[in-house]
Amino acid sequence: MVLSQHQQRRRVQFYETDLAGIVHFSWYFRYMEEAEHALWRAAGLSVAPRGSDIGWARVSAACDFHRPLRFEDEFDVTIRVAVVTHKTIQYACDMTRGDTKIAAGTMTVICVRVRPGEPMEAIDIPREIATRLQPIVDADERRG
Amino acid sequence: MVLSQHQQRRRVQFYETDLAGIVHFSWYFRYMEEAEHALWRAAGLSVAPRGSDIGWARVSAACDFHRPLRFEDEFDVTIRVAVVTHKTIQYACDMTRGDTKIAAGTMTVICVRVRPGEPMEAIDIPREIATRLQPIVDADERRG
Amino acid sequence: MVLSQHQQRRRVQFYETDLAGIVHFSWYFRYMEEAEHALWRAAGLSVAPRGSDIGWARVSAACDFHRPLRFEDEFDVTIRVAVVTHKTIQYACDMTRGDTKIAAGTMTVICVRVRPGEPMEAIDIPREIATRLQPIVDADERRG
Amino acid sequence: MVLSQHQQRRRVQFYETDLAGIVHFSWYFRYMEEAEHALWRAAGLSVAPRGSDIGWARVSAACDFHRPLRFEDEFDVTIRVAVVTHKTIQYACDMTRGDTKIAAGTMTVICVRVRPGEPMEAIDIPREIATRLQPIVDADERRG
Repeated sequence: MVLSQHQQRRRVQFYETDLAGIVHFSWYFRYMEEAEHALWRAAGLSVAPRGSDIGWARVSAACDFHRPLRFEDEFDVTIRVAVVTHKTIQYACDMTRGDTKIAAGTMTVICVRVRPGEPMEAIDIPREIATRLQPIVDADERRG
Repeated sequence: MVLSQHQQRRRVQFYETDLAGIVHFSWYFRYMEEAEHALWRAAGLSVAPRGSDIGWARVSAACDFHRPLRFEDEFDVTIRVAVVTHKTIQYACDMTRGDTKIAAGTMTVICVRVRPGEPMEAIDIPREIATRLQPIVDADERRG
Repeated sequence: MVLSQHQQRRRVQFYETDLAGIVHFSWYFRYMEEAEHALWRAAGLSVAPRGSDIGWARVSAACDFHRPLRFEDEFDVTIRVAVVTHKTIQYACDMTRGDTKIAAGTMTVICVRVRPGEPMEAIDIPREIATRLQPIVDADERRG
Repeated sequence: MVLSQHQQRRRVQFYETDLAGIVHFSWYFRYMEEAEHALWRAAGLSVAPRGSDIGWARVSAACDFHRPLRFEDEFDVTIRVAVVTHKTIQYACDMTRGDTKIAAGTMTVICVRVRPGEPMEAIDIPREIATRLQPIVDADERRG
């Protein structure tokens, strides 16, 4: 299946909170990654199939935090494929709870070959992956 | 003491690695936070003194990943106070292993009042804190 | 509702794996806690309602690890209320993947009063909680 | 070097706390593992040398929690080699803060061969490792 985005609901776990009583900011990056991998599964793919020598290294990650999350809060994580180049994929991610904007982030990954004892080497994204993860086209762009 | 930066050495722990054999990207944000809190301690402060109703909420965090870290690698985390406004502090952070640039990130925090049962409220940074954390002044700016 | 056990399905996340390619053992304790808290929710309870001064401190936790879990594995976590005393609850937990026994653990928690600036104090489990979490009675015991 | 125990000081990090304001219980298992790996390093060993096909799978882990740890607390982790068999090592671990007993735990690991695409297979502990990690002999036993 060709996919451009994926949404999933998530509940805050106790161990994700810190002494301030809210989710520790490092968890938002894991929430984004969970959604990324769920998007791949929904597209019939895995970021790490057993025995594969292809991996995905993070190039960058960023997140703006708008409202805190607390224990047992349910929230939605929506991830979109924003840009695909020969070797990289950029995702954009929104976290919301009802109408409340919780956080918004981006992540860029690069396709790498991973061989035991060798440094990672950037490679072109395999065709069977590139054809299934298509960047979102904005309505404005489509009209243009 | 008045401080603008802090450096500390850290060793990669087993539980910080993932199946790719390298440190999971979410940990870099925790490395930055560790350095931030060590900077505060070095300045004679704590981000969370017992009984205090003042806290520091993350506004944003970002990191670029240059080289992977592996189990038992030792690396240095250098954090600098980049910008201080009435209510916010922005940090810049470099992670290096010897001459190798591992990662570089930024974090912005906002000073908040935290009272049980009330939403967090942004407040001015207390004077005794603001006087101890001074932004780095670049050589270029000093000359200017 | 009166409950004695709860089962839930869980998928292994990327950040739960370590360089050995399997779930890090510390995560099994979090899986048990997730199931514990889901059991409470299913019973109409929360281990940490907002504004409550009652908490649950871990007294002990133990786990035997039978088979590894890998990225994207789905598995079931079944938690049972094993023993309830005036102040403590002991849980027993099984983790399985299909017919394969993955792990089995126990946790004991004690009911505590938590007041700002005071040490935790063990207290009797509130009646409205004790009536909803009933220990499993084994078939053998029932016959006896 | 032949070693039977190792002690190290550790400071509680912010992200190790939970909404109860104390260290989440899952972290104690990571503290034990940190000490285990530091013991190995002190003995001139690594639990996971690059390129090695020998690993250490957890068989079991347990911990009793006596007193809570809070943000920025400093505490000592002392790990001892308790029992060594042909294939397994059992550790005993004490966590203390000054004279206060914080926690006490045990972990058992089994030596395994890890080959890509094959299930883990239990093997005898290599001689160069077994000779460096010697179980503690109690004074009572020595007298006997």
